[in-house]
Amino acid sequence: MSNRCFRRTAAGRVVQKLLIKAIRERNLIRTGDRILIAVSGGKDSTVLAWALEQVRPALKTDYELAALHISSDFCGCCKKSVLSQKLEAWGIPFTDLFVPIIGRLKPGEKMNCYWCSTQRRTELLRYALAHKFNQIALGHHLDDIIETFFMNMTAKGELSAMPMALSYRKYPVRLIRPLGYVEEQQIAACAAEQDILKAACTCPYGIHSQRRDIRKGIAQFTGNSSAVKRRIFKALSDLLVQGEPLDRVNP
Amino acid sequence: MSNRCFRRTAAGRVVQKLLIKAIRERNLIRTGDRILIAVSGGKDSTVLAWALEQVRPALKTDYELAALHISSDFCGCCKKSVLSQKLEAWGIPFTDLFVPIIGRLKPGEKMNCYWCSTQRRTELLRYALAHKFNQIALGHHLDDIIETFFMNMTAKGELSAMPMALSYRKYPVRLIRPLGYVEEQQIAACAAEQDILKAACTCPYGIHSQRRDIRKGIAQFTGNSSAVKRRIFKALSDLLVQGEPLDRVNP
Repeated sequence: MSNRCFRRTAAGRVVQKLLIKAIRERNLIRTGDRILIAVSGGKDSTVLAWALEQVRPALKTDYELAALHISSDFCGCCKKSVLSQKLEAWGIPFTDLFVPIIGRLKPGEKMNCYWCSTQRRTELLRYALAHKFNQIALGHHLDDIIETFFMNMTAKGELSAMPMALSYRKYPVRLIRPLGYVEEQQIAACAAEQDILKAACTCPYGIHSQRRDIRKGIAQFTGNSSAVKRRIFKALSDLLVQGEPLDRVNP
Repeated sequence: MSNRCFRRTAAGRVVQKLLIKAIRERNLIRTGDRILIAVSGGKDSTVLAWALEQVRPALKTDYELAALHISSDFCGCCKKSVLSQKLEAWGIPFTDLFVPIIGRLKPGEKMNCYWCSTQRRTELLRYALAHKFNQIALGHHLDDIIETFFMNMTAKGELSAMPMALSYRKYPVRLIRPLGYVEEQQIAACAAEQDILKAACTCPYGIHSQRRDIRKGIAQFTGNSSAVKRRIFKALSDLLVQGEPLDRVNP
């Protein structure tokens, strides 16, 4: 086996191994689960879909997978057909749902990240409930979790993180983040190895400047070292466990 | 009153106000306390000594103050006379204690920050106990507390901070950090206003590179904004309260 071939195999294996570890340690998937994967077309959620299908034999758990993509009225460039072809090839049913995110704004209201994510989360929940899914899988990875921890600390003045699993008080559905143990660079390597091209719209509103500063700051003091990032993640370990079930739609 | 005069008055007042707030909220000083201030000659601990003397009338609490400076065998440039004159002018008794920090290294051992700080902390404790001080006041400020929180997270993988007050299990003495609510820039402004010149040796071993990266990272994502730093400090609030009393000399 050539070195190149060895490297090509490795990235997908790394993601699968960390996914299995997270699923087992955090009890994320159980027999009989109907799991709806929220797919944007970006590398993270597409790798999540691929990996959740790949790890079936290792998990020895019987679960169903489906994928939901939410299109919106400010997303004109989406290459959904690339995404749907991929998912079809992996045997994962795909649905595209149109949500008029700008159209729902009241007169005088401006578009913002919070509005957009709440609308998406609401539709995701509504679809999951209507189609009897008991789990919604999100593509957030280790770097997202660290970044959100820093965002919450600097913007809200609280030590809190996105939990790996989050139940609602009102609805029989749970949010799970099976890629929580995987670093973004490991997902990117896996996407390159498996020819998972990015097929998501770029948000025309761009990245929030505060998030950009947070990202730069984290890069500065971790030096992008995996070891340092994993130590930060270890520090957050207790915060990744849900306390009370959630009332709001968008945590 | 000219603007310049107004500004000159303000900085010392700000420090005193935050010091009083911390002392009251965290119950740092009680009637009858004998407080030993650890003075390096740097701006932080000198401003601490000045402010602890200034706030007596406002606190309406009867306490004694004294200052201890630790000299070492790698500190040849110290302008201790400047420091002792200042303290004398404020009515605070001053003692200089020589500790052979390098001289105590065993053959083959190398000098490092941990060794130096443990030796200093041990001598500080020993002196306090021998002279019946029940409190040791350290000059750490809000930026130090945030920085150490990030150091602990990235180097140890834990969410922990320097408490505002720390008791020992074995010794009848408590460490307190009355400047914990004050930002470094507020201390610097106060030092400039009160003609408190820096009279400390510069450590010949320099600042640890990891701490430098942490400092740059914090500056990056706070943009040196007081509001953001205070939100981070608020997030750490629960961590600033001591859990169990301490066994080790150097936390």
